[in-house]
Amino acid sequence: LSFTQSQWDIVLASFVMAAFALLGGFVYLLSTKREISARFRSSGIAGSIVCLVAFLAYLLLIISWIVGFRFDPGTAMYVPSGHALQFRNAYRYVDWSVTVPLLTVEIVVVSTLVGRAARRMRGLLIVLAWLMIVTGFLGADTFSSDTGRLVWGLISTVVFIPLYVLLLRTAFRSAKALGGPAGSALRSAGLLLSLTWGVYPLAYCVPFFFADSSGWAVGRQLAFTLADIAAKVGFGIFIHTVAKHRTGSEV
Amino acid sequence: LSFTQSQWDIVLASFVMAAFALLGGFVYLLSTKREISARFRSSGIAGSIVCLVAFLAYLLLIISWIVGFRFDPGTAMYVPSGHALQFRNAYRYVDWSVTVPLLTVEIVVVSTLVGRAARRMRGLLIVLAWLMIVTGFLGADTFSSDTGRLVWGLISTVVFIPLYVLLLRTAFRSAKALGGPAGSALRSAGLLLSLTWGVYPLAYCVPFFFADSSGWAVGRQLAFTLADIAAKVGFGIFIHTVAKHRTGSEV
Ligand SMILES: CC1=C(/C=C/C(C)=C/C=C/C(C)=C/C=O)C(C)(C)CCC1
Ligand SMILES: CC1=C(/C=C/C(C)=C/C=C/C(C)=C/C=O)C(C)(C)CCC1
Repeated sequence: LSFTQSQWDIVLASFVMAAFALLGGFVYLLSTKREISARFRSSGIAGSIVCLVAFLAYLLLIISWIVGFRFDPGTAMYVPSGHALQFRNAYRYVDWSVTVPLLTVEIVVVSTLVGRAARRMRGLLIVLAWLMIVTGFLGADTFSSDTGRLVWGLISTVVFIPLYVLLLRTAFRSAKALGGPAGSALRSAGLLLSLTWGVYPLAYCVPFFFADSSGWAVGRQLAFTLADIAAKVGFGIFIHTVAKHRTGSEV
Repeated sequence: LSFTQSQWDIVLASFVMAAFALLGGFVYLLSTKREISARFRSSGIAGSIVCLVAFLAYLLLIISWIVGFRFDPGTAMYVPSGHALQFRNAYRYVDWSVTVPLLTVEIVVVSTLVGRAARRMRGLLIVLAWLMIVTGFLGADTFSSDTGRLVWGLISTVVFIPLYVLLLRTAFRSAKALGGPAGSALRSAGLLLSLTWGVYPLAYCVPFFFADSSGWAVGRQLAFTLADIAAKVGFGIFIHTVAKHRTGSEV
């Protein structure tokens, strides 16, 4: 795919914006970890790791976006450069393979689950999240035929459904049990999760329904980028708020 | 060796995933060091150094994987680029020469050994671990003839056996003496160690039994990468758990 100057610029700008927002999230969540008591602190630490890892993942996207294209003065287009490190959307999955399991941990830590039930839920969510991403990666990259994409995408969806249900049930049940400001922050985190996580499977399906055009490619990159900022930084701040309120009342 | 697009991509993705997981391990173990009392704290610090060093080692692997190949449009393959920094599996040993001795320290710090016995065990394990890796490096890189590989591999194995026995004996005896949640976390750490450390000598032997194909090369890289994540991040978290429980009861 080739891109016009302004298409290439918009994508680059959105990547850099995401990198900056994620770096901000990292510094904020790490430097406020003492506001949270020991019991809930690992939610903030997990959130800061999510932001740091995703910041580096965006650096890789930025580098591959820059070295993966060269400007062709004849057509005034950005064309693939042939560099070994071509831009590939599948690089996003590498970030997700580490950060999505950690996002599920954030919910469990501030939920009302304790002891054995919390450990089992945490283990289950981590495994489901990792499997969902790895199977999605195989569909998106390695077996990039249309059948491969469909089959691995379906396998990934089969894992996604119980994961999504468990996560939202944990979030909303705990929110109800907690009540007050902690409960309402947890409800917001659950809502944000339910909306943003839906973006990824939709964006995955774009190539089935629309031709592989540069306009669609730009739209997909913007959708992923905005969803990433909301699902990591915005979500991390809501979780931090829950942890802070629970620290105050130590329920 | 040349690789197809998807082979090259999978290896790159696994390296980046490992780098992210290791960076997460570093941030986690460093930022939780105050949860551990002074007596056991160096186990967490050693664990965080292991993750940081290995993170940088993976950056080196990633860079050499990218500059070491170029995409050849004719054959649609990734072929060696001729850059001075070619990818070499032996770079992994450089990481291990520092991190494997530190991994043995983690066990000793949270074990029931104290005083002179602990100091002697620590010194012995550090020396054995370093010798095992350095002799293995000579077999894997410098004397890369089949005889050199065999002889240095055997010398390395002769060091490996007492090291493995001492480590596991220390872990399981201490786990039994400690009992409770600290003991069971230490038992898990010992089990993880016994499984993951076996992967390295097996992967070393692959070239003896199988032709030097790109499929086997990809398999070996994935095995090393997954073993590294488990042996450093997973192991570090188990050791952290032991240290935290021992802090609570100050046995
Ligand atoms: C169901 C499904 C998918 C779901 C992906 C999700 C839910 C990703 C979430 C990512 C997040 C939250 C990133 C970080 O902020 C894939 C893998 C696209 C493959 C197709 C099927
Ligand atoms: C016995 C043996 C080996 C053992 C290597 C080991 C046991 C490495 C452990 C590495 C770890 C734990 C890395 C970090 O996570 C070598 C050197 C391959 C050479 C062949 C003989």
